[in-house]
Amino acid sequence: MRVELLTVGDELLLGDTVNGNAAWLGRRLADHGVDVTRSVVVGDELDVIVEAVRAALGRADAVITTGGLGPTYDDLTRDALARAAGVGLVRDAGLERRLRERVARAGRELRPMALRMADVPEGARILRNSAGSAPGLRVELPGGIVYALPGVPFEMRTITDEVVLPELKEIAGLPAVARRTLRTARMWESVVASRLAEVEAMDGVRLAYLPDPAEVKVRITVAGPDAAGRLADVEARVRELLGDAVYGAEDESLDRVVHRLLAERSATVATAESLTGGLIGAELTAMPGSSATFAGGLVTYATDAKRSMLGVPADLLEEHGAVHPDVAAAMAAGARDALGATYGLAVTGVAGPEPQDGREVGTVYVGVAGPGKSPIVAAPRLPVPGAGPETRTVIRRMTVVHALELLRRVLVGLPEPDPDDPAREDREDPG
Amino acid sequence: MRVELLTVGDELLLGDTVNGNAAWLGRRLADHGVDVTRSVVVGDELDVIVEAVRAALGRADAVITTGGLGPTYDDLTRDALARAAGVGLVRDAGLERRLRERVARAGRELRPMALRMADVPEGARILRNSAGSAPGLRVELPGGIVYALPGVPFEMRTITDEVVLPELKEIAGLPAVARRTLRTARMWESVVASRLAEVEAMDGVRLAYLPDPAEVKVRITVAGPDAAGRLADVEARVRELLGDAVYGAEDESLDRVVHRLLAERSATVATAESLTGGLIGAELTAMPGSSATFAGGLVTYATDAKRSMLGVPADLLEEHGAVHPDVAAAMAAGARDALGATYGLAVTGVAGPEPQDGREVGTVYVGVAGPGKSPIVAAPRLPVPGAGPETRTVIRRMTVVHALELLRRVLVGLPEPDPDDPAREDREDPG
Repeated sequence: MRVELLTVGDELLLGDTVNGNAAWLGRRLADHGVDVTRSVVVGDELDVIVEAVRAALGRADAVITTGGLGPTYDDLTRDALARAAGVGLVRDAGLERRLRERVARAGRELRPMALRMADVPEGARILRNSAGSAPGLRVELPGGIVYALPGVPFEMRTITDEVVLPELKEIAGLPAVARRTLRTARMWESVVASRLAEVEAMDGVRLAYLPDPAEVKVRITVAGPDAAGRLADVEARVRELLGDAVYGAEDESLDRVVHRLLAERSATVATAESLTGGLIGAELTAMPGSSATFAGGLVTYATDAKRSMLGVPADLLEEHGAVHPDVAAAMAAGARDALGATYGLAVTGVAGPEPQDGREVGTVYVGVAGPGKSPIVAAPRLPVPGAGPETRTVIRRMTVVHALELLRRVLVGLPEPDPDDPAREDREDPG
Repeated sequence: MRVELLTVGDELLLGDTVNGNAAWLGRRLADHGVDVTRSVVVGDELDVIVEAVRAALGRADAVITTGGLGPTYDDLTRDALARAAGVGLVRDAGLERRLRERVARAGRELRPMALRMADVPEGARILRNSAGSAPGLRVELPGGIVYALPGVPFEMRTITDEVVLPELKEIAGLPAVARRTLRTARMWESVVASRLAEVEAMDGVRLAYLPDPAEVKVRITVAGPDAAGRLADVEARVRELLGDAVYGAEDESLDRVVHRLLAERSATVATAESLTGGLIGAELTAMPGSSATFAGGLVTYATDAKRSMLGVPADLLEEHGAVHPDVAAAMAAGARDALGATYGLAVTGVAGPEPQDGREVGTVYVGVAGPGKSPIVAAPRLPVPGAGPETRTVIRRMTVVHALELLRRVLVGLPEPDPDDPAREDREDPG
């Protein structure tokens, strides 16, 4: 079963929109054992769309198009499919009625242009869109099936899950692959890969490394008979080889793990942020219901606020500047106390692009203050990704991960590696 | 001059990576008057890449490929270009020397596989990569030119700007189009579009609307002789029609505008955040040097922290709950006073997915407390984008924009519309 994607829209070629629809579809289909073999973007030109549909069906069994189903005159997917099928467009009475009702409910007048959304190629099946107004279409052509979906992500996803995926899975049969994604933090991609060399050499096993700032996701794919059964064994071996760098699986992100661990301990955390400016707090409130375990935070971006809001000793700041392990420790304790939380989590460092207080860009200290113990401080050495404007963004993001990961390690009682150990694997050059 | 993009990599088809490279290249080339006419993604298969390069050159004058230039055996772009050109691969002595030096500097051994990065198709020109180890390649084929760039975004961008763009611009000649992007906040896309109907009808003028949560960017494209001169007139008319909703142009984001306005007034701002959990602080520290105008912030996510950290009156919280205009006002004043800033900026609201304190999802109050005046509160009605997990993300993002925009309006002295006026255009259904 070979599926190609065809995305229609000038805005994608011009780079105004990133093709997130293609990525989502690729992932969704792969998760269900259907492989996307090519993905093409073309502009809003009738001839080009017709040619692209035909070429895709010359290679694949099915084509999923997104975009070009709206009401404006540069929405041409309907016309292109009709032409590719050698049929005309007909107005669907049911679609027209629903459009008129929708507009009437909003108290507005129907623009004649909008009726285009009720036109379908003769013989096409209408795919109901429970999430919006533009329906999807299913057209059978000599070379295969075309599913035409709207470009609005939410609507595209809804129709895919409700209609397209069930149909494709039925055609493709049971998938012969099983997949699992494990999530690691603070370990270089090259270290992860070298540890997993023996797994990579196993028959029928494929590993993919998906790096994010300070995180690497490892996707294990096992193919062949009893794929699901073998996957369990392979996963166990991968976990063994990666040890405590694995913090979760699938969609279990680091903030979710931290919330779970805190809840299990009836504990809360308060944050004190310098270079991240609020990103850690934002991450810890991304999940609904997070107020049960997140007590609040302080953004002490300016040095003086570290003193006045968090009680960091003035002489410490004077002697060492704001970027120092002891400052991270004092900030963590200060946040814990100011917000009456069980734990305090703090970061201070240099996001760049310029050095600060004599410290290089990428110097970061993370502090965790627990109940009644002296704070633990980590000093990750962050790889500085070039000197461009993204440097700051990436360093801030890496700092968020290192902060949440240190808190996780403290919560589950993992030891912190000696910051001066030259053999520390999290310090290796990423190459 | 027609250019096609060819992105190589299984990870893109599987949706592990979003094709940000294609979006960046499309935008960059368009900004310099070079149009991308198609964009194709294929997997790591030699024959498929060769065929895709040939097909692209059958339609376009030049092809830019990204990806497949790394050291591993599934990096096949070099081989594919050699085969498409009917030549062999030769090892480049200069590239090999640089690779060996780089590895030696890191104190590691050269893996034999890595030497693949020193192989180039016979006759290809090497495009120096000042940002990393994989060089770009330029190969002339019968149908046109191929620029092969590495997939690492930072490296790809560097070679594009240093080598590819200057060459393409010289081939393409002076662009016959001029472009300008204006940025608006708090106005629906449909309202922006209807206000600009007369501009849309102008000869040789094209408008594109690029919506983000609570923001719409309007890109004006003027084609034809004296495009640059006409653009100035068109821009002036667009600004007139959109009024004070326009806050900036090109890359001048809302946080930058706010920092500039604060600096001009020698003023600072402090934040108090509820539902956004730190996102406003993160936005206000995204820019280097922001500590001059950002005093710091408080994340008072839990209701009690609003009282203890910001001095919001307990009876107010008891009577109305945390989501109330008076709470937003008290939070803003509290943040201003706690951090000794000129202005306090606060938000409180319901991000969902569940209602809170009897308030619907999307209910948000933004408060700005200025020096010596009573706080100003805005009550935007945010459109709730469905009931999916993205709802929370989008509402938080919209809240950040509404907060920064209210501060901007206060700083430049714009009046706040009556919250109860049913004719408010920012309340129209987005359709």
